[in-house]
Amino acid sequence: MTVPPFRPVIAIHGGAGTMSRAHAATGQEAAYHEALHAVLLPAQALLAAGGSALDAVSLAVDLLEECALFNAGHGAVFTHAGTHELDAAVMDGATLRAGAVCCVSRVRRPARAARAVMEHSEHVLFAGAGAEEFARRHGLELVDPSYFSTAARRDQLQRALAADRTLLDHDGAALAADTPAAPLEERGKMGTVGAVAVDAQGSLAAATSTGGMTNKQPGRVGDSPLIGAGTYADNATAAISCTGTGEMFIRLAVAHDVCARMRYGGLSLAQASEVVVHEALPAIAGRGGLVAVDRHGNVSMPFNTEGMYRGHARVGEAPYTAIFG
Amino acid sequence: MTVPPFRPVIAIHGGAGTMSRAHAATGQEAAYHEALHAVLLPAQALLAAGGSALDAVSLAVDLLEECALFNAGHGAVFTHAGTHELDAAVMDGATLRAGAVCCVSRVRRPARAARAVMEHSEHVLFAGAGAEEFARRHGLELVDPSYFSTAARRDQLQRALAADRTLLDHDGAALAADTPAAPLEERGKMGTVGAVAVDAQGSLAAATSTGGMTNKQPGRVGDSPLIGAGTYADNATAAISCTGTGEMFIRLAVAHDVCARMRYGGLSLAQASEVVVHEALPAIAGRGGLVAVDRHGNVSMPFNTEGMYRGHARVGEAPYTAIFG
Repeated sequence: MTVPPFRPVIAIHGGAGTMSRAHAATGQEAAYHEALHAVLLPAQALLAAGGSALDAVSLAVDLLEECALFNAGHGAVFTHAGTHELDAAVMDGATLRAGAVCCVSRVRRPARAARAVMEHSEHVLFAGAGAEEFARRHGLELVDPSYFSTAARRDQLQRALAADRTLLDHDGAALAADTPAAPLEERGKMGTVGAVAVDAQGSLAAATSTGGMTNKQPGRVGDSPLIGAGTYADNATAAISCTGTGEMFIRLAVAHDVCARMRYGGLSLAQASEVVVHEALPAIAGRGGLVAVDRHGNVSMPFNTEGMYRGHARVGEAPYTAIFG
Repeated sequence: MTVPPFRPVIAIHGGAGTMSRAHAATGQEAAYHEALHAVLLPAQALLAAGGSALDAVSLAVDLLEECALFNAGHGAVFTHAGTHELDAAVMDGATLRAGAVCCVSRVRRPARAARAVMEHSEHVLFAGAGAEEFARRHGLELVDPSYFSTAARRDQLQRALAADRTLLDHDGAALAADTPAAPLEERGKMGTVGAVAVDAQGSLAAATSTGGMTNKQPGRVGDSPLIGAGTYADNATAAISCTGTGEMFIRLAVAHDVCARMRYGGLSLAQASEVVVHEALPAIAGRGGLVAVDRHGNVSMPFNTEGMYRGHARVGEAPYTAIFG
């Protein structure tokens, strides 16, 4: 029996945001650390048992979607219209195959729908009712849109609507004063979950899922489901999942840009990730972060906000989780 | 008065495809050359008068959408359900601002809607009914979906539906035998229009618009409206608009990849465009092409199909148009 040449690792994020001082000192953080561990451990076990990176990121995002603490699946934020619109994507770095859905409101697990698109269609991205019909035909669970609603997210929408009425510049400063339940004040803009992994074969995969922005206009699509923007994986370079002000991530094609700086510019994973997050994004006022792995098991998790829910787990090591910088 | 340091140029495409031998020798091609000229001349005049690259590509795609010969706007292909779903995007290379819409069926000029998203929202991409509502609120013309329908495209759908019933592999070979009215057999997969330009200030812009694939599943989104995939512009490198098998262009983030190979790898516009179209895309069975300009006025229009409707016009020179290789 040969020793696998690659040491598997999974890295995840639950969104980036600005610290809410009122909560930074409370015990609220413990719940987030626990939730991140509860995602990392089964994904780590899957990789330890020889599972693929693709299955590991799918499992991790599945669990993140089902956790109400994070803005994806159950616990997704509300649109301006009081509805939910969820987006998700997955990409296989070995084949460059990818699948994604956007603007779905009845698919319980959007990341599974994205994977079904990748595996069972010749297409990459389905939107809206077409995406839901595709999911239904492929046996995925559909739910009433109210399934995604939580009281905390409804409160967040009410605060955002109130702020909209008084803040013409939409800068959300008034929201920060009215602190939410989470230790990171998302301002409704940064909530996304994602996972990247390398498996024992050295294959990479990335997956991202989100409920989008609180109070967003119906039909708005952010970076998460867009291959190259919020999600990318290529065995030649890296697997990337992003979180932040999605529009800026789209304009820079952030996930692909990290890979391109490695491939064409010769940067390391850490160098490429950090220059994008700390230089390119701030240059256009982009805020957020990303998680990244390469096939050598390097992990990079830079963010330019005050915090990002994040963690990673190497096979054979205790998981690491963190919230603040 | 100083001489402008940059010599403006506009380049356009009306889709890539495989030659239909039955039509290659007919006079049908003349209509396409004429149509391409009719788009290039006013865009060239706009640039000659000091207009911006952004306005030039917007005008060119407007005219391409309104021309029934091309698969965008009036003359768009039909989905499997017999409906139309149109996508468009625009990007300003000076600011990296971008706007896009997808899955719209009532917006007469999707590229204008994309520009309105760029200029009048904090978002980049709107899908479906949300995109139509945004367009309506910004004064854009909405039409009955039947506006987009033409007899030629309905015939194309009927052929595709018939082939689907007999061709399990969807490879469309049977369609090629049943030749359509256009000299390039699109197989319903390659129809897209786009424009890229550099203006006298050295600013770049790109715009793309499409009716998608004949017989596509409702909700499918291709590369055209995805920033970084089918459309990208960055004054530091190039403006790119793509046409082809959209899914492969998404998986490679083609438009951004051309720019990245220039910026990080030091390739010229021609080198970067050609390696992507002739090496990277064929490696995953991607077919199609792109038009590209840089701020020095270089133009590259590579394609790996038997033809691509294309042309360019420099200020002060007669326009060039071509269909086959």
